Amino acid sequence: MSKEEIQTKQKILAAAQRMFFENGYDKTSIHAIIEKVGVAKGTFYHHFSSKEELMEELVKGFAAEIEKGISGVLDEKMGAVEKLNAVARRGGELKKERVAFIRMYSEFMANPDNCRMTRRLMDISREITVPIYEKIINQGIEEGVFDCSGPDFTAEIIFGLGESMQRRIIPLIIKENPGKEDLAAIIKDLNAYERVMERILGAPEKSLKFAEETDIKVFLKK
Amino acid sequence: MSKEEIQTKQKILAAAQRMFFENGYDKTSIHAIIEKVGVAKGTFYHHFSSKEELMEELVKGFAAEIEKGISGVLDEKMGAVEKLNAVARRGGELKKERVAFIRMYSEFMANPDNCRMTRRLMDISREITVPIYEKIINQGIEEGVFDCSGPDFTAEIIFGLGESMQRRIIPLIIKENPGKEDLAAIIKDLNAYERVMERILGAPEKSLKFAEETDIKVFLKK
Repeated sequence: MSKEEIQTKQKILAAAQRMFFENGYDKTSIHAIIEKVGVAKGTFYHHFSSKEELMEELVKGFAAEIEKGISGVLDEKMGAVEKLNAVARRGGELKKERVAFIRMYSEFMANPDNCRMTRRLMDISREITVPIYEKIINQGIEEGVFDCSGPDFTAEIIFGLGESMQRRIIPLIIKENPGKEDLAAIIKDLNAYERVMERILGAPEKSLKFAEETDIKVFLKK
Repeated sequence: MSKEEIQTKQKILAAAQRMFFENGYDKTSIHAIIEKVGVAKGTFYHHFSSKEELMEELVKGFAAEIEKGISGVLDEKMGAVEKLNAVARRGGELKKERVAFIRMYSEFMANPDNCRMTRRLMDISREITVPIYEKIINQGIEEGVFDCSGPDFTAEIIFGLGESMQRRIIPLIIKENPGKEDLAAIIKDLNAYERVMERILGAPEKSLKFAEETDIKVFLKK
């Protein structure tokens, strides 16, 4: 691809992402995208065979960003407990840098119209994070700090736990006027989440600590 | 509604359900449904304002069936551990009575085209089962057989655990030629699932037992 072609592709991706978030995936047509970017139909189809393929590229782009952000932690010299905490905190930091994006994304996920894209995002996120958890779990078992069987199943469960947590938090992130009680509810759930994960992994009690109150606060609207 | 009207509504629902399962929700038009049932467009709109509303009714129908099947267990005089096992087994029996349906449903859920309906089904299933788990967890805490905090959060986690389990099992249920190793994989996951749930609830080890090998076998194709 020429430099110009790459730039055009990036422009289409950026415009489509914005339009998907604003109007929903289903309600954004290829026609509307090319009109917004100001390219010919043929140019679009030179880069993407369909809207689905464009979506797939966007999703993979998000995923690559997240993977890049946390995979460095895996290679560091740390114990498994420390590593699990570090992965969660690194993920949290990446989100804190993009509060507006996270809010928009939470609204996007809460809308059933976007379920296809949400599902792809979750599938790709699972493909990336489950092997990361599995590696850390195996390390923890070797170190004798974790006591659980079936690292692959356990990694899958840990991922699912994150989804359950999201389901509790998303309604509060997209709430127009969250109060003190909403922050308190998230903190309470987050602590319960850490304790449940320790039990599943057979990790020492209170060894997992993923976020502080100040980390959470930034995601609630003022 | 007259008896005749109720019958017509039932006919539309039954035909739509079959068509959604066979061709997917998105690919089934209202036009195709009324043609199949042989009713006028006005008759359809007399009963349903949209395809979405029809879907909603179908989903609520499934949910009511499941609720009817398991809610009786809640009122029986049993300890919390026994009750949790009974709810899982009753759910398993209901599924065993409808193996063909479960297989079709698994295929349906595996197809991203049906994500809207799948999502509604999961939401409604969550609305029904989370309060059931919560009641049993509260009972178990009172009896001193469970040791966990936040029964509402724990109930949500238990529901999510079921979803993680489904994700592992569905690909094997829809597999054309499952082998002995597939059955073994399900049994292994099921045992891990029971142990994880015991840990989350703080229940005695090996107290939970949801299914036998013979119960699982019927869902795999021959």
